[in-house]
Amino acid sequence: MFEHHQAYLQALGQQAKQASYALANLSGEQKQQLLSAIAATLTAHSDTILAANRQDVVNARASGLSDAMIDRLLLDKARLNNVIADIDNVIRLADPVGTELESQLLDNGLRLSRRRVPLGVVGVIYEARPNVTVDIAVLALKTGNAVILRGGKETLQSNVALSDAIREAITAQGLPADAVQLIQSADRALVTGLLKLDRYIDMIVPRGGQHLQRLCAEQATIPVILGGIGICHLYADKEVDIDKAIAVIANAKVQRPTVCNALDTALVHRDIAAQLLPKLYRQLADLGVSFYACPQAKALADGFAVDIHDATEESYAQEWLALTLGIKVVDDIDAAIAHIRQYSSGHSEGILTDNIHAAAYFVNQVDASAVYVNASTRFTDGGQFGLGAEVAVSTQKLHARGPMGLEALTTYKWIGVGEYTARR
Amino acid sequence: MFEHHQAYLQALGQQAKQASYALANLSGEQKQQLLSAIAATLTAHSDTILAANRQDVVNARASGLSDAMIDRLLLDKARLNNVIADIDNVIRLADPVGTELESQLLDNGLRLSRRRVPLGVVGVIYEARPNVTVDIAVLALKTGNAVILRGGKETLQSNVALSDAIREAITAQGLPADAVQLIQSADRALVTGLLKLDRYIDMIVPRGGQHLQRLCAEQATIPVILGGIGICHLYADKEVDIDKAIAVIANAKVQRPTVCNALDTALVHRDIAAQLLPKLYRQLADLGVSFYACPQAKALADGFAVDIHDATEESYAQEWLALTLGIKVVDDIDAAIAHIRQYSSGHSEGILTDNIHAAAYFVNQVDASAVYVNASTRFTDGGQFGLGAEVAVSTQKLHARGPMGLEALTTYKWIGVGEYTARR
Repeated sequence: MFEHHQAYLQALGQQAKQASYALANLSGEQKQQLLSAIAATLTAHSDTILAANRQDVVNARASGLSDAMIDRLLLDKARLNNVIADIDNVIRLADPVGTELESQLLDNGLRLSRRRVPLGVVGVIYEARPNVTVDIAVLALKTGNAVILRGGKETLQSNVALSDAIREAITAQGLPADAVQLIQSADRALVTGLLKLDRYIDMIVPRGGQHLQRLCAEQATIPVILGGIGICHLYADKEVDIDKAIAVIANAKVQRPTVCNALDTALVHRDIAAQLLPKLYRQLADLGVSFYACPQAKALADGFAVDIHDATEESYAQEWLALTLGIKVVDDIDAAIAHIRQYSSGHSEGILTDNIHAAAYFVNQVDASAVYVNASTRFTDGGQFGLGAEVAVSTQKLHARGPMGLEALTTYKWIGVGEYTARR
Repeated sequence: MFEHHQAYLQALGQQAKQASYALANLSGEQKQQLLSAIAATLTAHSDTILAANRQDVVNARASGLSDAMIDRLLLDKARLNNVIADIDNVIRLADPVGTELESQLLDNGLRLSRRRVPLGVVGVIYEARPNVTVDIAVLALKTGNAVILRGGKETLQSNVALSDAIREAITAQGLPADAVQLIQSADRALVTGLLKLDRYIDMIVPRGGQHLQRLCAEQATIPVILGGIGICHLYADKEVDIDKAIAVIANAKVQRPTVCNALDTALVHRDIAAQLLPKLYRQLADLGVSFYACPQAKALADGFAVDIHDATEESYAQEWLALTLGIKVVDDIDAAIAHIRQYSSGHSEGILTDNIHAAAYFVNQVDASAVYVNASTRFTDGGQFGLGAEVAVSTQKLHARGPMGLEALTTYKWIGVGEYTARR
């Protein structure tokens, strides 16, 4: 890494840490005022923000981005208003900071409690959509954290305009603007450097694809919350209501196919495959789904006009994010679990069954952030889970698992109060 | 890394993961029986274990290890009996696995709960003392986890004998011996390789010095719990009971100087330095303490026969683990907090004061796993905190902070139960 990168990142980290100390002192009410001020300033600067976004769109078209990508990065008046309106929802959430998780008087005379506190400094690396800039800044501030943002280069102008407005609002509240900092250079070396600022940053959240996740896992010396990759399965057990099972599978696949909790592979017990699969092919093909099926499953599609391919190791390991579904016939529940263990990304898995023992066994033996019985994988979501907000969806097991709400942006400290108490 | 290392580590990881599935199914009672069987088998194999330890001691002497180091690795009949007796304490602890942290019926019809489950596979890297082999294996099994152990080469024979006995007991209970695996080669490349087995290992706990901690932070692609490094401070505020403050400082320094929660630097408000420091020098010198003091503090030692040196950047950054104490006079509480922010390892920090506002301010502004008011830093300990066991002391903020009890060896999964419920 170049020396000027090093110096830039060090300054960024120091400023964030310094700002975090001021944020740790704020009351819930002060943080609410801060967020209200941010909403107002964003509204006041709407024209500047939309103009910056138009520039991003012009650049995106010039560099040949697809219409779908351009739609993702586009902000219009209505979308920006929604982003700003969402701040009100965060304002209304309970502030987890300051809660004492337990408090006891120890035999040694010490009053010991565990108090929820901000993490300190959070680094978030994300792609495309500019609303993330506002979402993350607001969630971080709500929990008393400073944040360093690194957005995609496609939305740089928008992100600069948004973060400038946020920083203006922070300053106007008499707080350090560096509570929210945006890395404005598109240089990738800055990402690698950011991942090693363990002296200043307490947690890294990468919100992006497999490549970004691996980069963070491999390069970071800071704890990273991996997530957002969902290779999700539903297993239809032999004792199952076939029509209802198909309805859940269809929901999990087609209700919103481009997101991480959408279904990728349906596993079907061999005893019911001949009844379930022809119906499933027909219904899902009507919804525009194509299939990658094992030989046994493919044989059951004979005579239907469905788009069906041979399943492979690679297709089973695929997060489709599209109207495509893997299909595999399995001998029993253990074979289903073994398949899931091999291919799951630990996001969302489910069993469809009428048998209570099969359900309990599956729940116990499948290792994922969310395990469902007779429900769609699409439920794995901060909003659906009632968390009020979603920082990310974690697929790792430490600190936060599954949809991450405000608590995931906090840690705790032990507080021991004595009377000049010594240890015996 | 050599290919045979790669193959060995892959097998190790796969076997551990496979064993973890069997452990996840055990009831609390079955795990208690397993631990009882381990205690009995260790007792039955005492002679073999002690003989192996004698071999380690012979080798240690031959390679010129210090008497202190040899004492650390020595097992005699009494020490081994203590290690085995400690298993009974773990048996009696409540099993955190299976607890439902919350359970609610969502508006969308889903019954959603969060259930505490084992992490899966835990990797522990440690140095010297052979009792850690038993401690960690027992705590991991108690929480339904498989464990991969990498002990120090100085205790290899002891660790082999101990883990062989543990594995024999596991097998006799009809469970997979690979629930506990010991890396028997001293090759350091295996440690680096272990840190990258993210497909199989869910958490790495390094129990060792700064060098090991940094190695893990830099090399691991698996979440690591850093900890065990304590650069600890006590700040004597201007409103303080001088004699009582000195007693707490003395306790924090001398009660057990070789451990991570022992005091490293005392910070003293300038208004009371002239009263406090001469007394402190005298009392602590009598207990064998030597000092590294700032110029202002050193001047106050004139005329005393104490061993006092000039404090430096390096001395302030030192975890002494010995009867040595840094001393610094500070202008006010903010200067004390600034010093702590610069040099603290985030382990244990404290304020000595009669002023309630100073205490609250310090607790809020100091970022450490444990923050004390009028108490010794020596309290940061799983036993003192009533956790019943101590896996390690974490100085990072994610997952577990401070003394880690059984819960730190668990995670949770979200469980959603519906009635063939789809998302709208």
